[in-house]
Amino acid sequence: MPVNLELAAPVAVAGVQLASVAAGVKRDGSDDLLLIALSAESTCAAVFTQSAFAAAPVTVARDHLARSAGGVRALLVNAGNANAGTGEPGIVMARGHCAAVAEALDLSSESVLPFSTGVIGQLLPDDAMRTGIAAAARALRANSVTPAPAPAPADADADARHATGMNSPVTTDIGDWRRAASAIMTTDTVPKLTSRTVTLGGGEVVTLTGMAKGAGMIEPHMATMLAYVFTDARIEQTCLQRALEAGVTGSFNAITVDGDTSTNDACVLCATACGASLSTNNQADWATFTDALDALLRDLSHAIVRDAEGATKFITVRVAGGRDRDECRRVGYAIANSPLVKTAMFASDANVGRLLMAIGKAGIEGLDANAVRVSLGDVLAFEQGGIAAGYNEEAGAAVMAEPEILVAIDLGRGDATTEVFTSDLSHAYVSINADYRS
Amino acid sequence: MPVNLELAAPVAVAGVQLASVAAGVKRDGSDDLLLIALSAESTCAAVFTQSAFAAAPVTVARDHLARSAGGVRALLVNAGNANAGTGEPGIVMARGHCAAVAEALDLSSESVLPFSTGVIGQLLPDDAMRTGIAAAARALRANSVTPAPAPAPADADADARHATGMNSPVTTDIGDWRRAASAIMTTDTVPKLTSRTVTLGGGEVVTLTGMAKGAGMIEPHMATMLAYVFTDARIEQTCLQRALEAGVTGSFNAITVDGDTSTNDACVLCATACGASLSTNNQADWATFTDALDALLRDLSHAIVRDAEGATKFITVRVAGGRDRDECRRVGYAIANSPLVKTAMFASDANVGRLLMAIGKAGIEGLDANAVRVSLGDVLAFEQGGIAAGYNEEAGAAVMAEPEILVAIDLGRGDATTEVFTSDLSHAYVSINADYRS
Repeated sequence: MPVNLELAAPVAVAGVQLASVAAGVKRDGSDDLLLIALSAESTCAAVFTQSAFAAAPVTVARDHLARSAGGVRALLVNAGNANAGTGEPGIVMARGHCAAVAEALDLSSESVLPFSTGVIGQLLPDDAMRTGIAAAARALRANSVTPAPAPAPADADADARHATGMNSPVTTDIGDWRRAASAIMTTDTVPKLTSRTVTLGGGEVVTLTGMAKGAGMIEPHMATMLAYVFTDARIEQTCLQRALEAGVTGSFNAITVDGDTSTNDACVLCATACGASLSTNNQADWATFTDALDALLRDLSHAIVRDAEGATKFITVRVAGGRDRDECRRVGYAIANSPLVKTAMFASDANVGRLLMAIGKAGIEGLDANAVRVSLGDVLAFEQGGIAAGYNEEAGAAVMAEPEILVAIDLGRGDATTEVFTSDLSHAYVSINADYRS
Repeated sequence: MPVNLELAAPVAVAGVQLASVAAGVKRDGSDDLLLIALSAESTCAAVFTQSAFAAAPVTVARDHLARSAGGVRALLVNAGNANAGTGEPGIVMARGHCAAVAEALDLSSESVLPFSTGVIGQLLPDDAMRTGIAAAARALRANSVTPAPAPAPADADADARHATGMNSPVTTDIGDWRRAASAIMTTDTVPKLTSRTVTLGGGEVVTLTGMAKGAGMIEPHMATMLAYVFTDARIEQTCLQRALEAGVTGSFNAITVDGDTSTNDACVLCATACGASLSTNNQADWATFTDALDALLRDLSHAIVRDAEGATKFITVRVAGGRDRDECRRVGYAIANSPLVKTAMFASDANVGRLLMAIGKAGIEGLDANAVRVSLGDVLAFEQGGIAAGYNEEAGAAVMAEPEILVAIDLGRGDATTEVFTSDLSHAYVSINADYRS
């Protein structure tokens, strides 16, 4: 069960159509293929895994994104097989599936981005994928073959727009979105789908809706697990890319479940140009938008940690007093990835010693142990090189007994600060990952 | 149960006296305090944890080792409490216990090195420690108050020397050594004690005997868990220190259980000067000695991994074809510390994909995925960017089913090579560490 996972209710975004089908990649017969069509003037930004073994779809998606200059019209996602470690045959297959989508929807291949998640090191079942793509494309065409571009009306009647779905009736069915968020799941126990709406200075309402999957193999670096965020705004691609890269820093790039970085991480932000126009020229509106984007990305990334494999706790590691952000991050991750800290969290054990151990191994040059302060929630546990005067373990244990735990570290040598978010290490984590392929 | 843990039978070393008592630091009433007295002309070398939160005894031991210039006469070890994160009171206590040993054995305080292992962040029970020290010192005095220095006889009748115990009768009782190796245990399931004897060019026999403890919080950096190695040879301290530092590189500094580095790691090498004289001037004899030392350190460090918390597998990660040793080590540790790799090992799952994931996240600049080869034992599983032609998972699964697993990586870009040794991640690891303090 996820830890306190509550997300704002999702809202459909104009200019986005979604079709989910069971292609037979997952063994259990559930939906495993998602096809998303975007309106004609959409722009798209993305960040990808930094793994040296980036999967075939990551390679192809990077290439297509560059060649289409962000003019992406469709996203193809499958779960159950990562198409990673599959060499040239995997690349050929990812390109072939993009071509199949392009042909079915009358698009160019370069405007289709492929994504895969699941087992690494096995070829995708090609026939099943192609049959699934054809079925999903039929479902999209049954509603609206090619989403028409729609210049943003300047009226402020946003609720009405949402209610009527604008130019793309299929997007008004929030059920399609929920089904899509489920189709991309692997070891996730719940779909992760949420929205934010903001009102700009001129009264226009902009909607942002995102979905994410991921529960293990989570420590994104400059990238993320699979996450897709859509907005109805009209935004130039370079601005969109900048907003995404800024947004993932404190969200997807600040979470870890097990310190393991996937071969398939990707986070995509699409602006369908069906609503208000946004650019960095209007700083106030841009800030309104990026604040909402940052919050949405944070909610989705935290949702991944709350639904982490075997998680029973949601842990915030706040590191302050560092000389720079990098050393704060090193300490944060040393704590968040320590198996001994994580098992102590699972046990609700106020084990300050293991926190000290993790800080100590983080490799911070010249760290003065006597200047470090460690708190569990509001309870100061360690300072001046020893257990804090007045600390009593009952107070610490009370903090640890909660499903949400704040560990606050002050390195006492500067002004930099950061937060890292993680889960605990439980028997269920071992079971899930020892049994995943069998 | 340890994984295939078989160590050569231990032999007592002349010039070493050991007394173990139950001081009451451990809750279960078992031995938890070990006092070791060394002959008067002994030299001593040591390496310690690099943790920024080095424990009080580490700080004091470093200081005493420097002030005595390696002329160490006694080692005091307690298990059950690490005296780490205890600030100035912890330092005062460690110094006080050294002084107590010094007074009881008529030594200088600086010639006593203190060591602690166990829970972090609690003060040692001072009275219990002092009572235990007095009892251990009485036990030592009952046998031989101060071990007399004994110039090494040049005869080759080493077996007779061992049999008679030379100047220090108590060392002939190997039971004292076994009891000592048990007294320093925490979550270890078995004591780790073993010996090597080598014959020098002139016919003299040199004995090396070592003991180690440790099963979790194991990823020593330029240091190790608690390990004590003794030889009857006469060796200048600077040579001894050099031999120890070289020896730990491929042994204690090449193992990991959980990637967590202790605040209390220490590895100590004592030469009692009761036997043959050794120096770097005689290169052949020196090589004979250091080869035996390296082998002993390797055996002890592997014993820690074989007895790792919850271990069911002993895994060798061999990384070849790197540009330098550092990048081989980074790949080796990325694999050895990956929770997903370790849970797959626990499941005997030939999950090549998780190995690729771990290699991919290791941050090797410009790594060409197509040049990388991955083998499970002798079975080539991955090459040229994809699953190897002719690989069949049954062959991989047969390798994984064994308790000893070799994972061989060839990075295909150089001549450097290294090995890292680790254990798997099982339910028992979680249980042990979730329950350790409660």
